[in-house]
Amino acid sequence: MKSKILEKISEPEDLKKLNINELKQLAKEIREKIIKVVCENGGHLASNLGTVELTIALHRVFNSPNDKIIWDVGHQSYTHKLLTGRVNQFYSLRKWDGISGLIRPSESEHDIFISGHSSIAVSAALGFAKANEIAGKSDYVVSVIGDGSLTGGQIFEGLNNSGVSAKNFIVILNDNNMAINKNQGGLANYLDKIRLNTKYWEFKGAFAWFLGKLPLGKPLICLLRKFKAFLKSLLYPKNIFENLGFNYIGPVNGHNIKNVLCALERAKKYAKPVVVHVNTKKGKGHKLAEEQPDKFHNVVDAPLQRTFSSEFGKAMVKFAETNSRICAITAAMRDSVGLFQFSQTFSERFFDVGIAEQHAVTFAAGLAESGLTPVVAVCSTFLQRAYDQLLHDVSISNSHVVLAIDRAGFVGGDGETHHGLFDVVFLSGIPNTTIYAPLNYAEQRHCLKLAIDGTGLCAVRYPKGEEINIPELINVREAEYAYLQQSKKDILVVTYGRISSFVVNSLEYFKKLGISVSLLRMIKIHPVEAVYLEIACEYRTVIFLEEGIKSGSVAEQFGSKLAEIGAKVNYFVRAVDNGFVPHGNLEEQLGFVKLDAENVKNFIKSVALSVSSKINVNLKEKLQFSKRLT
Amino acid sequence: MKSKILEKISEPEDLKKLNINELKQLAKEIREKIIKVVCENGGHLASNLGTVELTIALHRVFNSPNDKIIWDVGHQSYTHKLLTGRVNQFYSLRKWDGISGLIRPSESEHDIFISGHSSIAVSAALGFAKANEIAGKSDYVVSVIGDGSLTGGQIFEGLNNSGVSAKNFIVILNDNNMAINKNQGGLANYLDKIRLNTKYWEFKGAFAWFLGKLPLGKPLICLLRKFKAFLKSLLYPKNIFENLGFNYIGPVNGHNIKNVLCALERAKKYAKPVVVHVNTKKGKGHKLAEEQPDKFHNVVDAPLQRTFSSEFGKAMVKFAETNSRICAITAAMRDSVGLFQFSQTFSERFFDVGIAEQHAVTFAAGLAESGLTPVVAVCSTFLQRAYDQLLHDVSISNSHVVLAIDRAGFVGGDGETHHGLFDVVFLSGIPNTTIYAPLNYAEQRHCLKLAIDGTGLCAVRYPKGEEINIPELINVREAEYAYLQQSKKDILVVTYGRISSFVVNSLEYFKKLGISVSLLRMIKIHPVEAVYLEIACEYRTVIFLEEGIKSGSVAEQFGSKLAEIGAKVNYFVRAVDNGFVPHGNLEEQLGFVKLDAENVKNFIKSVALSVSSKINVNLKEKLQFSKRLT
Repeated sequence: MKSKILEKISEPEDLKKLNINELKQLAKEIREKIIKVVCENGGHLASNLGTVELTIALHRVFNSPNDKIIWDVGHQSYTHKLLTGRVNQFYSLRKWDGISGLIRPSESEHDIFISGHSSIAVSAALGFAKANEIAGKSDYVVSVIGDGSLTGGQIFEGLNNSGVSAKNFIVILNDNNMAINKNQGGLANYLDKIRLNTKYWEFKGAFAWFLGKLPLGKPLICLLRKFKAFLKSLLYPKNIFENLGFNYIGPVNGHNIKNVLCALERAKKYAKPVVVHVNTKKGKGHKLAEEQPDKFHNVVDAPLQRTFSSEFGKAMVKFAETNSRICAITAAMRDSVGLFQFSQTFSERFFDVGIAEQHAVTFAAGLAESGLTPVVAVCSTFLQRAYDQLLHDVSISNSHVVLAIDRAGFVGGDGETHHGLFDVVFLSGIPNTTIYAPLNYAEQRHCLKLAIDGTGLCAVRYPKGEEINIPELINVREAEYAYLQQSKKDILVVTYGRISSFVVNSLEYFKKLGISVSLLRMIKIHPVEAVYLEIACEYRTVIFLEEGIKSGSVAEQFGSKLAEIGAKVNYFVRAVDNGFVPHGNLEEQLGFVKLDAENVKNFIKSVALSVSSKINVNLKEKLQFSKRLT
Repeated sequence: MKSKILEKISEPEDLKKLNINELKQLAKEIREKIIKVVCENGGHLASNLGTVELTIALHRVFNSPNDKIIWDVGHQSYTHKLLTGRVNQFYSLRKWDGISGLIRPSESEHDIFISGHSSIAVSAALGFAKANEIAGKSDYVVSVIGDGSLTGGQIFEGLNNSGVSAKNFIVILNDNNMAINKNQGGLANYLDKIRLNTKYWEFKGAFAWFLGKLPLGKPLICLLRKFKAFLKSLLYPKNIFENLGFNYIGPVNGHNIKNVLCALERAKKYAKPVVVHVNTKKGKGHKLAEEQPDKFHNVVDAPLQRTFSSEFGKAMVKFAETNSRICAITAAMRDSVGLFQFSQTFSERFFDVGIAEQHAVTFAAGLAESGLTPVVAVCSTFLQRAYDQLLHDVSISNSHVVLAIDRAGFVGGDGETHHGLFDVVFLSGIPNTTIYAPLNYAEQRHCLKLAIDGTGLCAVRYPKGEEINIPELINVREAEYAYLQQSKKDILVVTYGRISSFVVNSLEYFKKLGISVSLLRMIKIHPVEAVYLEIACEYRTVIFLEEGIKSGSVAEQFGSKLAEIGAKVNYFVRAVDNGFVPHGNLEEQLGFVKLDAENVKNFIKSVALSVSSKINVNLKEKLQFSKRLT
């Protein structure tokens, strides 16, 4: 089907020529486009279908990019992309070299601020608003946040700061009563109330009138005078946003373009900052997505039967059956991290805290100090937000908290903001921490067991997707390391995680070339065990490969320790030099940092050749040379 | 003067025998004790004087440690310490081997949860409460938070989670209308309103009665029936806490013991979680501290005229005069980080965001993306809370944000929770980051200038207190490194910051011993420059000294790079192996990790002797040996 109207929109300005019926037709075309592309490429379906009319209205009322529209998380921004000149690239959504599924300032002047992590949009918006103020500009700054974002503490920091001081500042609360799973906490209940009780707000006008009409029966007239002033303060029982200094408009039906347009126009007229509360339906216009928005939050092109996430969930259920101290905590990702079954079986010991990683970790520390064994299941990238809590609330007291870190390493379609490339560095700098990096499900289970039975902060990190089985490299029993040694001790590759498989798969190749390559696969990657160094010292050349940021990495810790013990080895490292790798598939991302199978093979080979040539180069040449190898 | 009653209190139980007058006398004695000890030892005066009656009431009503009292930040817990068996140790407050000025579970069974950083107490309390629930215990969990804590987002994550589900759960809002400086944001205004308008809450009862008495004039009777149901919903205009699921009691005069006792007893009776709002006065009972609570927040025994903080502030004012893009941001520490003058001179470009480091950084990114140059002035330890924002909101877009990191390294009296020992590791793992570590004020100014004129994330970190001047080691112009070389290239010490002075001061000593020691003091400590490695390669032995956590440190990055370029040097590292060093003075803390002047001298000497003895040891011995050196 031809998208007659959509294809004529090359910039937001074009929207302003359309009438309401054309806008409605546009919404229909956009939905069709989104459903088609997401079903092919994967991506966020339900959240994007929920914001079609809202986005059309935003771009019609405001003048992007002078007026700045800042999307929180960004998983609701497909319509925004389609309306800002990216219709023709939309087929490439989430593909390598294609357009991102989230907001990327590098992609368009209409993509104002990076998005991916939750609850930051109001803080960023206030930055733009204050800059406008300083420059004497009266452009609008609009941030679009979900009700799920409201469970993340930073949004309150932002609201608290902007309510009192910002100008031409509008916050759109896109309220679909969902995070990825059902939204959590007292605030969700509160929004429920506002949402259902629309009359509560409509009533304000009527009540004002009523007060004027109060029949002043004589016996009460004195009392009433006193009360009247007070009744006025009750007249508008302020909601949370008003208490923070905002005007409040809503709730508005977010699928009625006319209503949304009207509310936005009204919001522009206020001198004070405004919250516009818009009710939307996740998955709107797609029957299945409307019924099961959590299932259609992030559509995966080829869903897997078993993954590290699902196996983690199974292991948790099994362990919890015999260990009544185990608790599970998730920050709004129950199903994605594999905890659905646990939540049903051990509801008393299951906690979904909302998008609140900071709270999740401190809460876990509280449980731990009470003698329970909390397991916080969290994506590597989102754990970044709880760094201070891990240090301050867990590590100083040496509390026993277990982290089940999902999506460690590259994650594919979500790109820069979602890779798990930093956890190893920031966790290994935290005292009293043990980190495991299992390769297959059996090992994951065993590491989890060790972590649960361990002390201090114990992390088990595993990638998105499926296990890798390399029979000769398995060491479930000890969960420290697996060592595949050649009799001739020329080259040792040290690594962990999936890169190990690339090495194993190229061993035949090296054998044919006469290059002797051994492999030390670490499972316990922190602290670095003395035995790893002992093994390394037996070799002339050690190559460390790491799917993680290089600065402060295990590779660098390892290299320094080799230097400290005076090991006489040639040492080479390949890790991720810049952690920001675009969206695409795993192979493309590994390829970008030269850690895919082919590059790993070539790197080992070039090291082998260079070492055997025994060129005696001076330092400057060495620095050059080491760059050439990378 | 003898503290007649206080000295009889050896545990909270003893309070229960006292009558109101005795409790009042006790409060008086406690104030005298606190003022005396803080004036001698330094510490938090104003905040502790504000909570005397509240703490007495808490320990009288609840049964610690079965009932768990959890203090946020902990700088209001001196009375708690005095009432829980620590009267006789109180003289040792904040001293090495003495009692901590904050909450330390290692110190007493009544110190339930570590404290130091803000806004975590509700999250931790919920952990204890849920553990009670799981164990079937009905003990109370009480968290005590300040109104300043409310500006930190995590407190909302905690309230959002506990309001709906916790049992026997009481949150005390200790509201003194202050953080360290005047409290910030919309919420502060809101609390002002509640606080001033006590009638608003007292009125509830009266209004209910009034509704019952409404004179139902005939023309209005039908209308009124409709309205009446609605009026009920208006009857109790809920405040923020109630909206989150809490019962609310308050505000209570926090210096009237009887009122506080009464409110706490009432709070115990509720089935739902309760917020008890207590108004207190910072500095209560000490005239100067009442008048200037910010000045008396943290009393320093020997205040300095010029510090890195004050010089930072001066430099900022100077730069901002000619550069209109410079903005300054603080998270509730305007005066402590030296920004008072800036805030007065450039009020439009000054932002105190409250205790909200996450918001501070994202907000800065917004300013930066608008073309301004934000400088976030923040203590190293508190910056930990913005790790994710630095990575996600600043670094991915390579935004130009400047960090002025105060209190880098050991901080003295505040102890474990406040040292700045982690920033170098977590910042150097963030791509696009430059870190400077100046030694004196001139260098600090120059580094700040470079950071302001730089790109990406630029951090200038400096310790608490005063500059160190070592004339022969100054390099203001380049701000990369200063190099003090001996003609004989035996030993090179690489370091940064104040440890450099220990090395310089021992050079004469080494000369006499015939040991040739050169010194490379880094100023730009990240990224590690190639020239540093070139210098290092000229030596037989390189010793890296670092006042920071070792795992992932610059020392390890440096060592790995030496290994990677094949440098044939003996490499030795001394850094902080476990970042949690107790309160005391700087010398004691450096001594604890063997990085004080004496230990540094001895370490260099022992390395020199061991290297020159050329013992050929095997690997196991090397590992042992390297441990012996440490």
